[in-house]
Amino acid sequence: MAAYVVARRRSLGWITSQLGDLWRSYSTSFREERDTFGPIQVPSDKLWGAQTQRSLQNFDIGGERERMPEPIVRAFGILKKCAAKVNMEYGLDPAIGKAIMQAAQEVAEGKLNDHFPLVVWQTGSGTQSNMNANEVIANRAAEILGHKRGEKYVHPNDHVNRAQSSNDTFPTVMHIAAGMEINSRLIPKLNTLHSTLHSKSIEFKDIVKIGRTHTQDATPLTLGQEFSGYTTQVKYGIDRVSCTLPHIYQLAQGGTAVGTGLNTKKGFDVKIARAVAEETNLPFVTAENKFEALAAHDAFVECSGALNTIATSLMKIANDIRLLGSGPRCGLGELILPENEPGSSIMPGKVNPTQCEALTMVCAQVMGNNVAITVGGSNGHFELNVFKPMIASCLLHSARLLGDASASFEKNCVRGIQANKERISKLLHESLMLVTSLNPKIGYDNAAAVAKLAHKEGSTLKEAALKLGVLTSEEFDTLVVPEKMIGPTD
Amino acid sequence: MAAYVVARRRSLGWITSQLGDLWRSYSTSFREERDTFGPIQVPSDKLWGAQTQRSLQNFDIGGERERMPEPIVRAFGILKKCAAKVNMEYGLDPAIGKAIMQAAQEVAEGKLNDHFPLVVWQTGSGTQSNMNANEVIANRAAEILGHKRGEKYVHPNDHVNRAQSSNDTFPTVMHIAAGMEINSRLIPKLNTLHSTLHSKSIEFKDIVKIGRTHTQDATPLTLGQEFSGYTTQVKYGIDRVSCTLPHIYQLAQGGTAVGTGLNTKKGFDVKIARAVAEETNLPFVTAENKFEALAAHDAFVECSGALNTIATSLMKIANDIRLLGSGPRCGLGELILPENEPGSSIMPGKVNPTQCEALTMVCAQVMGNNVAITVGGSNGHFELNVFKPMIASCLLHSARLLGDASASFEKNCVRGIQANKERISKLLHESLMLVTSLNPKIGYDNAAAVAKLAHKEGSTLKEAALKLGVLTSEEFDTLVVPEKMIGPTD
Amino acid sequence: MAAYVVARRRSLGWITSQLGDLWRSYSTSFREERDTFGPIQVPSDKLWGAQTQRSLQNFDIGGERERMPEPIVRAFGILKKCAAKVNMEYGLDPAIGKAIMQAAQEVAEGKLNDHFPLVVWQTGSGTQSNMNANEVIANRAAEILGHKRGEKYVHPNDHVNRAQSSNDTFPTVMHIAAGMEINSRLIPKLNTLHSTLHSKSIEFKDIVKIGRTHTQDATPLTLGQEFSGYTTQVKYGIDRVSCTLPHIYQLAQGGTAVGTGLNTKKGFDVKIARAVAEETNLPFVTAENKFEALAAHDAFVECSGALNTIATSLMKIANDIRLLGSGPRCGLGELILPENEPGSSIMPGKVNPTQCEALTMVCAQVMGNNVAITVGGSNGHFELNVFKPMIASCLLHSARLLGDASASFEKNCVRGIQANKERISKLLHESLMLVTSLNPKIGYDNAAAVAKLAHKEGSTLKEAALKLGVLTSEEFDTLVVPEKMIGPTD
Amino acid sequence: MAAYVVARRRSLGWITSQLGDLWRSYSTSFREERDTFGPIQVPSDKLWGAQTQRSLQNFDIGGERERMPEPIVRAFGILKKCAAKVNMEYGLDPAIGKAIMQAAQEVAEGKLNDHFPLVVWQTGSGTQSNMNANEVIANRAAEILGHKRGEKYVHPNDHVNRAQSSNDTFPTVMHIAAGMEINSRLIPKLNTLHSTLHSKSIEFKDIVKIGRTHTQDATPLTLGQEFSGYTTQVKYGIDRVSCTLPHIYQLAQGGTAVGTGLNTKKGFDVKIARAVAEETNLPFVTAENKFEALAAHDAFVECSGALNTIATSLMKIANDIRLLGSGPRCGLGELILPENEPGSSIMPGKVNPTQCEALTMVCAQVMGNNVAITVGGSNGHFELNVFKPMIASCLLHSARLLGDASASFEKNCVRGIQANKERISKLLHESLMLVTSLNPKIGYDNAAAVAKLAHKEGSTLKEAALKLGVLTSEEFDTLVVPEKMIGPTD
Repeated sequence: MAAYVVARRRSLGWITSQLGDLWRSYSTSFREERDTFGPIQVPSDKLWGAQTQRSLQNFDIGGERERMPEPIVRAFGILKKCAAKVNMEYGLDPAIGKAIMQAAQEVAEGKLNDHFPLVVWQTGSGTQSNMNANEVIANRAAEILGHKRGEKYVHPNDHVNRAQSSNDTFPTVMHIAAGMEINSRLIPKLNTLHSTLHSKSIEFKDIVKIGRTHTQDATPLTLGQEFSGYTTQVKYGIDRVSCTLPHIYQLAQGGTAVGTGLNTKKGFDVKIARAVAEETNLPFVTAENKFEALAAHDAFVECSGALNTIATSLMKIANDIRLLGSGPRCGLGELILPENEPGSSIMPGKVNPTQCEALTMVCAQVMGNNVAITVGGSNGHFELNVFKPMIASCLLHSARLLGDASASFEKNCVRGIQANKERISKLLHESLMLVTSLNPKIGYDNAAAVAKLAHKEGSTLKEAALKLGVLTSEEFDTLVVPEKMIGPTD
Repeated sequence: MAAYVVARRRSLGWITSQLGDLWRSYSTSFREERDTFGPIQVPSDKLWGAQTQRSLQNFDIGGERERMPEPIVRAFGILKKCAAKVNMEYGLDPAIGKAIMQAAQEVAEGKLNDHFPLVVWQTGSGTQSNMNANEVIANRAAEILGHKRGEKYVHPNDHVNRAQSSNDTFPTVMHIAAGMEINSRLIPKLNTLHSTLHSKSIEFKDIVKIGRTHTQDATPLTLGQEFSGYTTQVKYGIDRVSCTLPHIYQLAQGGTAVGTGLNTKKGFDVKIARAVAEETNLPFVTAENKFEALAAHDAFVECSGALNTIATSLMKIANDIRLLGSGPRCGLGELILPENEPGSSIMPGKVNPTQCEALTMVCAQVMGNNVAITVGGSNGHFELNVFKPMIASCLLHSARLLGDASASFEKNCVRGIQANKERISKLLHESLMLVTSLNPKIGYDNAAAVAKLAHKEGSTLKEAALKLGVLTSEEFDTLVVPEKMIGPTD
Repeated sequence: MAAYVVARRRSLGWITSQLGDLWRSYSTSFREERDTFGPIQVPSDKLWGAQTQRSLQNFDIGGERERMPEPIVRAFGILKKCAAKVNMEYGLDPAIGKAIMQAAQEVAEGKLNDHFPLVVWQTGSGTQSNMNANEVIANRAAEILGHKRGEKYVHPNDHVNRAQSSNDTFPTVMHIAAGMEINSRLIPKLNTLHSTLHSKSIEFKDIVKIGRTHTQDATPLTLGQEFSGYTTQVKYGIDRVSCTLPHIYQLAQGGTAVGTGLNTKKGFDVKIARAVAEETNLPFVTAENKFEALAAHDAFVECSGALNTIATSLMKIANDIRLLGSGPRCGLGELILPENEPGSSIMPGKVNPTQCEALTMVCAQVMGNNVAITVGGSNGHFELNVFKPMIASCLLHSARLLGDASASFEKNCVRGIQANKERISKLLHESLMLVTSLNPKIGYDNAAAVAKLAHKEGSTLKEAALKLGVLTSEEFDTLVVPEKMIGPTD
Repeated sequence: MAAYVVARRRSLGWITSQLGDLWRSYSTSFREERDTFGPIQVPSDKLWGAQTQRSLQNFDIGGERERMPEPIVRAFGILKKCAAKVNMEYGLDPAIGKAIMQAAQEVAEGKLNDHFPLVVWQTGSGTQSNMNANEVIANRAAEILGHKRGEKYVHPNDHVNRAQSSNDTFPTVMHIAAGMEINSRLIPKLNTLHSTLHSKSIEFKDIVKIGRTHTQDATPLTLGQEFSGYTTQVKYGIDRVSCTLPHIYQLAQGGTAVGTGLNTKKGFDVKIARAVAEETNLPFVTAENKFEALAAHDAFVECSGALNTIATSLMKIANDIRLLGSGPRCGLGELILPENEPGSSIMPGKVNPTQCEALTMVCAQVMGNNVAITVGGSNGHFELNVFKPMIASCLLHSARLLGDASASFEKNCVRGIQANKERISKLLHESLMLVTSLNPKIGYDNAAAVAKLAHKEGSTLKEAALKLGVLTSEEFDTLVVPEKMIGPTD
């Protein structure tokens, strides 16, 4: 049989020796699997079948780290389990149905990850990954029922893929994976970050500091007020991504090949969405319009737009924190950031804001992924958008990175931030702009003269005011009180 | 005085002869205006003052078409009118206050557009445009009260800018302009497009056509179903941008320089938001957190993300329509698009899908603007984001272009689309994939043999079926009915 | 005739009252012009003809500021002049040819700008702007020869457009415009910026300052070295954009409708490129492959990539300069930036880095435009990319903004930057990391102890060293010399 | 010791049970390693040391597939080998130096990949990966010399990192990796694609087909001409990326911490660049300006701009090919694409253009990565850009994906493309626009009448011409010859 395969490969114009690294490394013993294209050799220790094997050979792009993201694989497990459950209502043999459910559950739990070798860069409908799931689950279900892999006692198409098309299955899996990742990983981590920022804004509520606009000294505010801005940004970010979830919760399943639902039964779409909702405990529903759900991925572009906004927020926050923590001697030095690792083997006291750096790099990547998703989303043709795996991969990448980096930033940076009160106070009181509070007493011109003299001589405002004789020391101390400058007046 | 100005310019290191085109072209007679930097010559026929003039000379970037967008100018009129109204409650002289309101109303109506010469590429806080508004309104109000421009009977800072800072004013104006443009221009035009697409989906509901996935022939659907996908995309797009409005409706006014509200009275923020809401008939409110409202423009990044999603949708729709309308002889030819202009002086029947082209170009621009807004939004420092004019300009650009192009596309293309029923029917019945409906009767293998023979010989399925003797002519006609393939079965 | 027009409009499904603002505002008296679509009313005082008028009515998108960029209009003048010149060699009546050349020269000089009302958002081939040029030049040439506009004594197609198609003409005009703008506006302004930065790096060559990595204090360098980095970035930027010009210099003219050159004579392509080269004094040549030149705009994507890189560089430089100039009391304060306008009416000494802000906003816009160009460039179909006007507009926008903002930044900021030597020296000598130079003498552990003590007690390194008794005062002064830390050792 | 570690972790505010998946999975037995932060437990079977371990614990972001790309790891091997070689010239103990060279060679060969567990999302200088390399090489070199790991017989800093700083090392490694990947993987694969496209353009040189502009029928060209456009795009793409290599070949090594070269010897920079050039056989040189080389990554932004342009080209090509191959019955059908896998279990003859889909998804990703790189590149501060690992990762990702996808597309699609001559000929001869060639004989008006009649009646041009009686059958056949319409005339 190996001879046959080699011959066929040659007839297809391949050079065997150039076969992808991916495939070669898996196995040394093989079994034969078949599809409508004919027989093909598959590693004996793998559950996948002919179509997976073909994709592996035809798409040698990017290597192992480009494999379909795990949340997609797990979502396939969930969907195929639900499909078997619903299909039993429509006549699928219960023994086979139950075995499929058991096998699919193993996929959902990540136990069969090694049997999902395909990369993102395959057919744009994700058909090959759908067949990978069908093949693995069929072979595993067959084994559960005491049959051998490859025999098709449980058939990948007739039993596992039953009433489904890749064209509605893959977008369904995209939506399940995104909904789960955002709910289980991203939002909780953003919530923790929000909570810690909020604690800090309370902890710092009485620390009055100089404000900065245009990167230049401005009127004062409290450090707590400054952190309340960050807190609000993260809070709104959580709102933003949550607002996109209703479209994510719409499942394409039941649209089959082009959105019409050909080859399904009426009601299948509603039932499978309900089953997925029960399985995931998330409010998935059947898509209002299946044509839109297959041909476009606007829901992902929208959701990515929310992640992009969160990235914008976090970039701003992390930048501020590293600049406020700059120093120790030659920067702003208002914040003391936790030390997590040696910044330098030479310089004690040097703390590099490495968590800010990891986070801002993540933000840049998320902004880039947003463009990739936009380009993919805008390039659908007719009844099917065929940038599905890339769109799914980028969104899940962004969500995972934003969640993990937020958690790391919270744990290893924000939580441990301390205010350098002495430095903050020193800068505040040196600032020339406190002169503003003299205006009502001595008039703008005199106040300006005070500030100009202080600026020119490098003195304090008080020294300048006394030198000009416009105020007594006591008057100055009564009038220039930054603590009174942090809100509107009655 | 001219001598003085020239001397000063030289002392500032300028070469007078290199002054910007913008300034030179405006006027030949001048009056003197002053600010804290000293006197400066201003064209006599213009209402602006010293700070506007300085910006004009210091930011010779891009020429006239880069002027601050008109919706921003008009929003300044609205805001300054409301500020005068509220400031009268807090002690502003009613005579002056009313004159300011009248002058501001003229700005709001676009009557004084010629007095707003500044470009987007100025200070990142928009301070210079705020001062432009203050100066124009002060001079105009003074004239209303019988005083001369330049005399400062009505003072740009003390009277017009009273209780405001550029730092809260400019973001407020951004939000007013965006809220109004989206409500008055973008959403109504998208609604019209949605409505027309929906009408088309009903008009075409009985036209069964071939579906296409992967750009390849697939199972049938109706043309109405295909258009229902487009309709849904536009409907969701309207939802998406509407979902971002609550953050747009939050106004920064009352935060003043750094968000604390220094120099305002308690309650000013709420009152002015209420006044703007009344003036615009839109639900503006005071921002929950003024620090966030000055230091970040996440609300614009979020809103731009929605516009980006709409662009993605419209790109897909316009692409489909031009491909479905491709031909007349050598394309798909399923749609007949309206002829609006000569496509060629040689070829009758050639219709170029020019409205699709204008629309898709707009979509590309909106995607680009989204990146510009994201970059600007992520680069705020401390208490102030200083990419404000660029962010405002890009968002208003995107909203205007999407609205106008949608309207043009609706009026000059979608409304007049006709189905080429003959062509649609011909393609449908030639399609090999109708063979699918034979499976239940003759089995997959025989059906495949029929399809293969037809493909090989270029014959119809029926011819192939009869040749193979697997069906009678009557049986074929009973079984192969595309109209039964456009939905799930009972 | 007006009745006819209205009737026709209705038959086309328009509502007359919704006609674009653009058109209504131009004129009150009209003449009739004709094309293959029939007659149409055109404002009497305008030189354009029927096809321009149709576009004006069919593409009411964005308003006046979206008009085709002036460099495109001027490039049309150049190209049409050259075409007439070459066409006379191939038989065009010399009297007509010369009149065309004269009229085209007026277009090239910008004298007829008011006669080019069309917006960017039109047909994606730019056909309508090509016809606008043909019509204006034909009518103007006819007038020169004593004939009336509209009579077609000089014919827009037969005489002016002769041997050309919009499909090769518009990309040719794009390339001429880009080549000229980059050479005459962008590169000279970048050269000036480079030269001034270089002067500053020499002026500052002996000022030793603290370095900063990770925004944290690091080992010293000179301010001149720091500026040499900026200088190098700008120098390489000029190289980068220059490297893309060879592809910009390739002209599509001669490819006509699909790249084959149908309806031209052999040699026409080479001759017209030579004529354009002579006219512009730039090394334009005929495109090596005309199919590529019509169907793709990779040359613009490439060139935009260079502009994007320049934007990246300038963003970094402007950010550094505003942060190094932050203060006056509570920032880094190493640079003193020129004051160009009041930063605040309250705070003398507050200088807002407004030129940095204008420049960084421009950089963000250029990054966005790069994405728009990329999206447009990637979406060509078959023999013609139909995102031409958008691609042209974005690239010219980016080039103009980068050039102007660089010039403004150079003139109003960089040229006047002064080093705050006192502040620089103070920060340098307070820095703990000078301890590095003690390592060879007292060993890493003792040096670390010195630094840690200084950090803990807020003292100088010298105080800490003397307190620990590891060095004498003289030894310390001999060893700790920042000036010796700014290069490798022999 | 485990107790100590746990205690320390708690004191750092961790919850041990939340430790990253990455770390937990590696090992069960541990040894102690130390850095200036103190001792830490490291898996016994791993060569890395304390700083690697800390990063692993502090940056639990993204999981295993986010590990630093392998080309970076290998480049570390090359660089550290060269550094040891040069350092021996400057006094490094030859025994240790040789052991380092041997260990580094193993890294360069990918043999120690398992010992590089760190993710991209770490410190933005890549310090932790540099220390990872230093630690692994030191421990491995010590073992080679008969010492135990952890004992620091070979010291990661003093011996391996000698005369280097992460700040010049990491950008050097970025440049080595990019230079090697582009030369060894990307360009050869693009060359192969170019070569195959060129062969196809020759193979198809005599097949005259209908051209399409605006997706509408246009004048004819040969299929070979059409492919020559694609060929030129790929050829120029190779030129474009090659043009960016001179900046990639500039190495930062020798700049050390801030670009000054502190702690290196004069000449070290030149020698190490020469050593790298010898080792890699690529023309690496020392960077002209080390300040630029550390503080900016414009060279990567530039290079990514070239990759972005290539992506634009390939998107266009792949889109054309799938549309030209659309069908089999209801599309354009001019090309027959190779069948590589079942497109559908139902429809024989259905070939999905899956290679086009994989390639276009890659292109979208590359466009996104370009934005990420741009954002990272523009956000450097002062003497160091701290988006290094992200920038490196994105560029290598783009280069790898473009190379692999081009190879896959070439092998599995382009190479096997066949022209569907019958279909091409049918469409060509049905096209109405061949009427153009009748103009000289019967005049435009008659020709238009012929075309209009044919269009109206759905007949051929010849039938219409004969019906109208404007030509004889023989005359028609003589005049209407598409083969004469594919070039300029003499």
